[in-house]
Amino acid sequence: MTASTVQGRDPASLRRHNLRTLLRHLHLQGATSRVRLGEVTGLTRSTIADLVGELAERGLAVETGSSRPQSGRGRPPMIVSPREETAYVLAVSVDVDTIGIGRVGLGGTLLEESEARHERGPGDPAASVSQLVRLIHAEVEPFEHAPLAVGIAVPGLVRAEDGVVTRAPNLGWRELNLAERLRDELRFTGPIVIGNEARLAALAEHRRGAGRDCADLVYVSAGVGVGGGIVTHDRLLTGSTGYAGEVGHMITNPGGRSCHCGGRGCWETEIGADALLSQVGVVAPTNRHTALEELFAGAERSDPEVLEAFRRMCPPVAVGLANLVNVFDPRRVLLGGWLRLMLRHTGEELRTALDQLRGLPELPADLRTARFGEQGRLLGAAEAAVSGFLAELR
Amino acid sequence: MTASTVQGRDPASLRRHNLRTLLRHLHLQGATSRVRLGEVTGLTRSTIADLVGELAERGLAVETGSSRPQSGRGRPPMIVSPREETAYVLAVSVDVDTIGIGRVGLGGTLLEESEARHERGPGDPAASVSQLVRLIHAEVEPFEHAPLAVGIAVPGLVRAEDGVVTRAPNLGWRELNLAERLRDELRFTGPIVIGNEARLAALAEHRRGAGRDCADLVYVSAGVGVGGGIVTHDRLLTGSTGYAGEVGHMITNPGGRSCHCGGRGCWETEIGADALLSQVGVVAPTNRHTALEELFAGAERSDPEVLEAFRRMCPPVAVGLANLVNVFDPRRVLLGGWLRLMLRHTGEELRTALDQLRGLPELPADLRTARFGEQGRLLGAAEAAVSGFLAELR
Ligand SMILES: [Zn+2]
Ligand SMILES: [Zn+2]
Repeated sequence: MTASTVQGRDPASLRRHNLRTLLRHLHLQGATSRVRLGEVTGLTRSTIADLVGELAERGLAVETGSSRPQSGRGRPPMIVSPREETAYVLAVSVDVDTIGIGRVGLGGTLLEESEARHERGPGDPAASVSQLVRLIHAEVEPFEHAPLAVGIAVPGLVRAEDGVVTRAPNLGWRELNLAERLRDELRFTGPIVIGNEARLAALAEHRRGAGRDCADLVYVSAGVGVGGGIVTHDRLLTGSTGYAGEVGHMITNPGGRSCHCGGRGCWETEIGADALLSQVGVVAPTNRHTALEELFAGAERSDPEVLEAFRRMCPPVAVGLANLVNVFDPRRVLLGGWLRLMLRHTGEELRTALDQLRGLPELPADLRTARFGEQGRLLGAAEAAVSGFLAELR
Repeated sequence: MTASTVQGRDPASLRRHNLRTLLRHLHLQGATSRVRLGEVTGLTRSTIADLVGELAERGLAVETGSSRPQSGRGRPPMIVSPREETAYVLAVSVDVDTIGIGRVGLGGTLLEESEARHERGPGDPAASVSQLVRLIHAEVEPFEHAPLAVGIAVPGLVRAEDGVVTRAPNLGWRELNLAERLRDELRFTGPIVIGNEARLAALAEHRRGAGRDCADLVYVSAGVGVGGGIVTHDRLLTGSTGYAGEVGHMITNPGGRSCHCGGRGCWETEIGADALLSQVGVVAPTNRHTALEELFAGAERSDPEVLEAFRRMCPPVAVGLANLVNVFDPRRVLLGGWLRLMLRHTGEELRTALDQLRGLPELPADLRTARFGEQGRLLGAAEAAVSGFLAELR
């Protein structure tokens, strides 16, 4: 939308546009004076007063400060804040073994958070859907107000067009219209936004975390699989179908092992859980998550065998990072999952491996740990929910 | 820039914004009726009339049609067109052996084009700069009006911050402030925009070519080296320093040959000129360009040896394409340089190689030939020049 098209709009549509602009500012920047809101939006004082009045009436914002002049100091500023008691979204993070759920206020504060064991049925998402409905009901029940929107992070491909989870191999889901199933059972009429967990974690880092000041950002996270999310020109990269960011399925070893995606030699087969675990002698574990957690605990106590495993993983990790840097030229590369541990414990070796493999030193390769750990997916689901709410604001 | 910030602007700045919007529309869409310009911009009839008057006065647009009513049919529409006789940019494409130069009218028409042998000095860009000055003077001299801007495509890295050509290995240039050198010698005060040739070719495809309808686009071209340009969210990807799109230096064979970029196993070492020529038994040719042109001529007459070379190159070409598709999820992948010939003559083999390597069939891999051949760089340089002119319009 260009600026000039706004001038041609009808007043109701212009008002919605202005309400959205104010709310987005309050969500991202927090409490703001009326004067500053005027500066930011270019709107007149009376328009701001009018819009803030509507936001207050709808329970979305609250105003503090008084209009009475104080002796010798003029009026104190009127401060507008998001009203998180009534204006909150529900964020859900679905993982193989667990389901995380939390309430996040407009403004981005995680108000409360809980985790449940994921009670999955064999090959059928029905049990997961029922559990999600129970968990969401339980989370919302104590509160008078319904959430503004629901955001859900899933470990799988999510089609942009209709929000369908097209494939989530670790959950056994295929072509699941999760939003529709939840909407039917929850009787919730607000937006339900489904997103890939790594993309949402990248969104959280961009808006609230270690990539806040980066218009161009690459986020890579390694756990059981390898996921990623990319920000270009200050926007999360979606691609033509919503699947952009499948960095785990870059081919980094063309002669390599076959991958569950159907390809061969994917980065995920080189640096995923199985590759890492095999470095410490663990082959075909009964539960990959448990085995990985033991390995991570070893890293935390600087177990030499684990650190040596990290060192041996540096070259294959560096190959994928080199590709992403040379293609995206990001301001920063954020590492999540066990790559955070790798960077913390064997960062020097990782940077050396990257320098040895990669040319074009003109392009910066600024590796940093992601700010959020497991919570990134949940916070990103909340951000996507707020965006969904703003997009449908009437 | 958000819509609402425009409302807060001063009238002169708003007028500039509106002039730019009109000119951009005329450049991209061509002749447009006044009524349609009003619909597109949301501006009133009198504002449009006023702005069009200014554009006509400045020699940027011309109006046709009469305001006299015709019997029984009302007034014929007033049509506004870019005035390419006086409103044109100069586009230059610098290559190893040649320099192309052309005049492109506002509206995107290539008005005329010529090519000269590039008279390079050994390791010093002075000879190239002098030749560029001579060629530009000769091109502009016959015309009363100076160009609106100059755009120059170079085979090298161009830093966004200051337009410096940081490295152009095939020309032997390093840290060359080409725009500044030309500005001094040309005594031209308008914008001089320098860009990487593959990025500019991608821009031309996006605005005028085979990627016109694609918000997300990957362009890859193979010649002596392998270059690329990427469009995300309808904008050319620049990255944090302007170098984004170095697809030739993705590492597609980690154990491979060392590359002039300083890396190892880059895609360019796998599918660049040397790799292709070695498939037809040509090793270390005295002139790579000539050797490549002979090979291309062989492809055009379906020489079986050349087609077999293309077939053998399909797997390494497919590796890089697979990575780009899985990371960017582009609407379309456009192939330039000899990859156009490969797609035309052995396209089935290339698509099969891609399918065999790549997983995630959910992400479309729509391979197409680029519309423009060698001309793409020149047309892209013109587009960049027009953008530079619009950005600095006063
Ligand atoms: Zn894969
Ligand atoms: Zn290279």
